[in-house]
Amino acid sequence: MSCCDQPGLIPVEQALEKLLNAAQPITETETEMVAVGKALGRVLAADQQSTVDVPPADNSAMDGFAFNSVDCKESGQTTLPLSQRIPAGVAPQSLQPGTAARIFTGAEVPSGADTVIMQENCQWDSDQVILPAEPKAGDNVRPRGQDIQSGSIIMCRGHRIKPQDMGLLASVGIAEVPVYRRLKVAVLSTGDELVEPGSDLPPGHIYNSNRYTLAGLMEAQGFDYIDLGIVPDNFEATEQALRKAAALADCIVTSGGVSVGEEDHVKACVEKLGSLDLWRLAIKPGKPLAFGNVLGTPILGLPGNPAAVFVTCAIVARPFLLKTQGANDILPTPIQVIADFDRPKPAKRQEYLRAMLSLDENGVAHAQIAGNQSSGVLSTASVGNGFAVHSLNGTITAGEPVPFLLFSDVLY
Amino acid sequence: MSCCDQPGLIPVEQALEKLLNAAQPITETETEMVAVGKALGRVLAADQQSTVDVPPADNSAMDGFAFNSVDCKESGQTTLPLSQRIPAGVAPQSLQPGTAARIFTGAEVPSGADTVIMQENCQWDSDQVILPAEPKAGDNVRPRGQDIQSGSIIMCRGHRIKPQDMGLLASVGIAEVPVYRRLKVAVLSTGDELVEPGSDLPPGHIYNSNRYTLAGLMEAQGFDYIDLGIVPDNFEATEQALRKAAALADCIVTSGGVSVGEEDHVKACVEKLGSLDLWRLAIKPGKPLAFGNVLGTPILGLPGNPAAVFVTCAIVARPFLLKTQGANDILPTPIQVIADFDRPKPAKRQEYLRAMLSLDENGVAHAQIAGNQSSGVLSTASVGNGFAVHSLNGTITAGEPVPFLLFSDVLY
Repeated sequence: MSCCDQPGLIPVEQALEKLLNAAQPITETETEMVAVGKALGRVLAADQQSTVDVPPADNSAMDGFAFNSVDCKESGQTTLPLSQRIPAGVAPQSLQPGTAARIFTGAEVPSGADTVIMQENCQWDSDQVILPAEPKAGDNVRPRGQDIQSGSIIMCRGHRIKPQDMGLLASVGIAEVPVYRRLKVAVLSTGDELVEPGSDLPPGHIYNSNRYTLAGLMEAQGFDYIDLGIVPDNFEATEQALRKAAALADCIVTSGGVSVGEEDHVKACVEKLGSLDLWRLAIKPGKPLAFGNVLGTPILGLPGNPAAVFVTCAIVARPFLLKTQGANDILPTPIQVIADFDRPKPAKRQEYLRAMLSLDENGVAHAQIAGNQSSGVLSTASVGNGFAVHSLNGTITAGEPVPFLLFSDVLY
Repeated sequence: MSCCDQPGLIPVEQALEKLLNAAQPITETETEMVAVGKALGRVLAADQQSTVDVPPADNSAMDGFAFNSVDCKESGQTTLPLSQRIPAGVAPQSLQPGTAARIFTGAEVPSGADTVIMQENCQWDSDQVILPAEPKAGDNVRPRGQDIQSGSIIMCRGHRIKPQDMGLLASVGIAEVPVYRRLKVAVLSTGDELVEPGSDLPPGHIYNSNRYTLAGLMEAQGFDYIDLGIVPDNFEATEQALRKAAALADCIVTSGGVSVGEEDHVKACVEKLGSLDLWRLAIKPGKPLAFGNVLGTPILGLPGNPAAVFVTCAIVARPFLLKTQGANDILPTPIQVIADFDRPKPAKRQEYLRAMLSLDENGVAHAQIAGNQSSGVLSTASVGNGFAVHSLNGTITAGEPVPFLLFSDVLY
């Protein structure tokens, strides 16, 4: 896994591939059962199979009248006596030949009937119904098993459960599902210049923002976030914090403190307790990224600048952590929008520009740069709604397509 | 607000406008203070102003050497004595003229210095440093207030807090923020055919899925979800449930039971306790939508079919509820992708096709239909990752752009 000896910068895709190859998903024994109603964002630990057909029987898509299409005249209206009334939730009788049944949306279509006509197209009283000419056989009947057949796999192991998945699981009668326990991620910030918000700011200091950005990212992904706060810039405190993190967590994420600087103790500490590779990624903001282990627990060392932390966590750390969590849908979906700006110089590092989408009068999405793109500037990540990607070695021309990642697609 | 008398179907955009005009945001008195680290997804109840500059002083973007560019030769290397060492977190002395300071990433640049050279480009020992020729004045210095100036508004009332917003608030020293209390949304399903998952399925019945889809959608948006379960199809039980919902919640969402059918008691009940308009939306799946109030509490009646509930909740109910919560960023951002399918017939209702994005060899996003688009079919909402929108009266041609909404953009 060593990359230190590579002369150039590592492209983001290559770094992601290395990280994902190294990721060790939580094993199948580390699962728990959760109620489907509480399963949002959790990762399925086993394929889910349906034991029923959905719908379980032919049912009506409308309020109207059920009948057999053979009883209808080929032309002109047909009058049929009403032989039963079938509200939703009631098991119907077989339909007597030559009759119709009053039926309601969601109700089971009786055997012997093959078609439903919506009531707006009929005339009826309590005894009989007049059906319009030439009804189409099969109309307004949702056939048994249309959505799901008994025995089929409806959701795979590794699926992250979204709201509609909760509905789908419930629709086949599944009340609880096995999921992997939440991934425990320990987060620590390094830097003697850091002060917690809410206190005064002495000269030479800045407020710690990375702790909060990372807390939000971990919570949004449903991880069990272990906040180890700010670690002082000295070897002993760093070692103590790393040992604690390794004992408590499945993964460790740090911000700041991983470079070749004399004041950086994380590198020396991790090398004492495990191993560390320093990568130089072709990513901007970002570049330095450390990956290794502390007493066997994987550690990701992110840069210290606020925007660099945001980008490297969303783009690089998130897929690694999601794979370790056991998820299989871990990469965002880049789309293309029209650039409203020029970047004529080929990018030496792939740049994730904080940007805003807006629609023009034709409904076409355009991306504007959200402002200052310095790695220290977080405000543009707050006003933007995604990353316009200036691809490695590529250029961006106004009016041409540019890849875009919506924040909603890289935060959750 | 009555729309029943309109002859045609109401376009989705027009219905949304009516709903949003009717939405009454939670008032400013209904706020609470939360720690920034716990504020994910909450809605700001007041503009947030910075009382500091970020960064608070000029600081170094690199490990290297700080000096004044006037002390450098115009050509050739310059040797300067080292007069101080400035780690991050230490308040520096003013720089003695004609000297350089050893400096580290994030450390404050001393007054009298205007430039930092990264250490990789220097030679140095404990006493002096040799700087390269022609350093560019201002290099590697992040100026005071580059990101945020003291007194500026960094986030507006109504902003929904994302992970990077948590970091931004912390970066100006804000430890807690005023947010609106969570919106209380009561959800109830109607239909005697419904059975809860985990129990046996009698003839004529189906499992209740809407309750779970809606639970997930409410949780994803950070609402306080009040689950009132299944209401039996009779007037008394419906009235009792609606009275309870109105007493407990800010908004009521129902699925099923709102049509002109004889078995639908919700309409009559709501009209007894308040008022109800039945709208026929030009949306597919969907169409019937009820909007009114129960004893003054707004009620949204969604259709009963699983996919129709998913679509109408994500597209229509979500913006209404978010506005009632006090949020101002409430509509998703449609993008355009290439359709891999044809829909040559003009859409009589705007259709939200469950679809999947994939990238071709050029990185261009294409949309494929996820399968069966029947309003009863939820499985295609689970395998898909967004809606391809067949616009009202429009057509879709393979190879041409089609509007697309990523699920991640309409679920959170």
